[in-house]
Amino acid sequence: MKIAIAGKGGVGKTTLAGLLARSFAAEGKHVLAIDADPDANLASALGIPAGRYAHLQPFSHMKDLAKERTGADSGYGGLFILNPKVDDLPDAFCVEHAGVRLLLMGTVEHGGTGCVCPEHTLLRSLMKHLLLERRDLVIMDMEAGIEHLGRSTAEAVDLLIVVVEPGQRSIQTTRQIEKLAADIGIKKIAYVGSKIKSQEDKAFLASALPAEKMLGYLSLNETIRDADRTGAAPYDIGGDFLEELLAIKTRLLDYAG
Amino acid sequence: MKIAIAGKGGVGKTTLAGLLARSFAAEGKHVLAIDADPDANLASALGIPAGRYAHLQPFSHMKDLAKERTGADSGYGGLFILNPKVDDLPDAFCVEHAGVRLLLMGTVEHGGTGCVCPEHTLLRSLMKHLLLERRDLVIMDMEAGIEHLGRSTAEAVDLLIVVVEPGQRSIQTTRQIEKLAADIGIKKIAYVGSKIKSQEDKAFLASALPAEKMLGYLSLNETIRDADRTGAAPYDIGGDFLEELLAIKTRLLDYAG
Repeated sequence: MKIAIAGKGGVGKTTLAGLLARSFAAEGKHVLAIDADPDANLASALGIPAGRYAHLQPFSHMKDLAKERTGADSGYGGLFILNPKVDDLPDAFCVEHAGVRLLLMGTVEHGGTGCVCPEHTLLRSLMKHLLLERRDLVIMDMEAGIEHLGRSTAEAVDLLIVVVEPGQRSIQTTRQIEKLAADIGIKKIAYVGSKIKSQEDKAFLASALPAEKMLGYLSLNETIRDADRTGAAPYDIGGDFLEELLAIKTRLLDYAG
Repeated sequence: MKIAIAGKGGVGKTTLAGLLARSFAAEGKHVLAIDADPDANLASALGIPAGRYAHLQPFSHMKDLAKERTGADSGYGGLFILNPKVDDLPDAFCVEHAGVRLLLMGTVEHGGTGCVCPEHTLLRSLMKHLLLERRDLVIMDMEAGIEHLGRSTAEAVDLLIVVVEPGQRSIQTTRQIEKLAADIGIKKIAYVGSKIKSQEDKAFLASALPAEKMLGYLSLNETIRDADRTGAAPYDIGGDFLEELLAIKTRLLDYAG
């Protein structure tokens, strides 16, 4: 299954992506986690020590590797095996931790050099052609907001999860994402409520969004906030939210069919 | 003065932009607030009733207006007055509220239609050529993350404020923004600490970032969180954070010279 996680900035996309990836890996799934945000920080949410990913090459550098190996500037084509499996991805672009392989899309390396469309194009192509086995799971953490839907980066996913916090602005973004995702033919969309402080927060989200698509809720948690300060992964620290996560996973598998 | 506000998703960029815009307008400045995020929600942070901006045309539609008026598809050039003043901006693209004029950059209107580079290009050009009088102030709320720095959208600003919350991920983004901003020649960069809960939070940020660039701190505030739920502007609700805001403004004017 291929899953993408989207939503307004700061709602908890990366936290959810990290929790789902680590939790599915812990039960034996082969998880490929893709950081599709140029402002990348999924690695730390997965609990990968900084020293292990500081020099990880982003996937967008595949073009350089192709040139080096073939001596020709033939674009990405030469390096792409038709319909590659997760294990076919070159080690230079992956780091593995606790059963999760991480791939970085790529970023803005120098100011003024343009947008990250080439990086998105390569990733869209990979997502389209990647062949998954039954135990494989791909979790892609998207950039904040909606621009990736202009670029159709996630068009080949089986499920798009929109993370939503109890506020008008986050709900506005969620509605916009849902509309744009329909434009590019993404069939299954679900929500996860995030930063929940009270029953009122849940009721607020429930009144704004259809219940059948709500996979569950993650409470606002000081542990998760502190984890970001120490640079630790929420999954490693643990807390009540791990039970909420289990409920979300159960509902997710059921919903995605 | 032209100011841009950047930072990781969800740190409080739009909240700060709304507070600064309303507060400077209240003391008589002519404020132009620009929402440079395709996932736009500065209007509600400014307290503009939804009915007044729901049908506001984004600035990127100027091209259509140019075509309509001149009969030619000559790009944006024909409509741009050389070195326009704030008051020269066509009313069709502005809504005014409490002394603040709001302009929307533009967004992804249909999924799969590409990135928002054309919108950024037009805005970059406007920012470069806009002539300000002494009482004019432009506040531009950037998209989450760093891609706008690849596009140089804010290259002509006098000051780039990076909003930073007490977490490793936000600090990582701040450092990346600072590096990319230097690449495109932005000379003055400052920080505002956001979502501060304790003295430890301030100490955490103070240990990570140079003190001379820190304009001040905004506390994590239930009022602001609730404001987003009701769709109200933090400035209109008020609270202790308005005093923090005054301190930030004083330091900002001093720092920007």
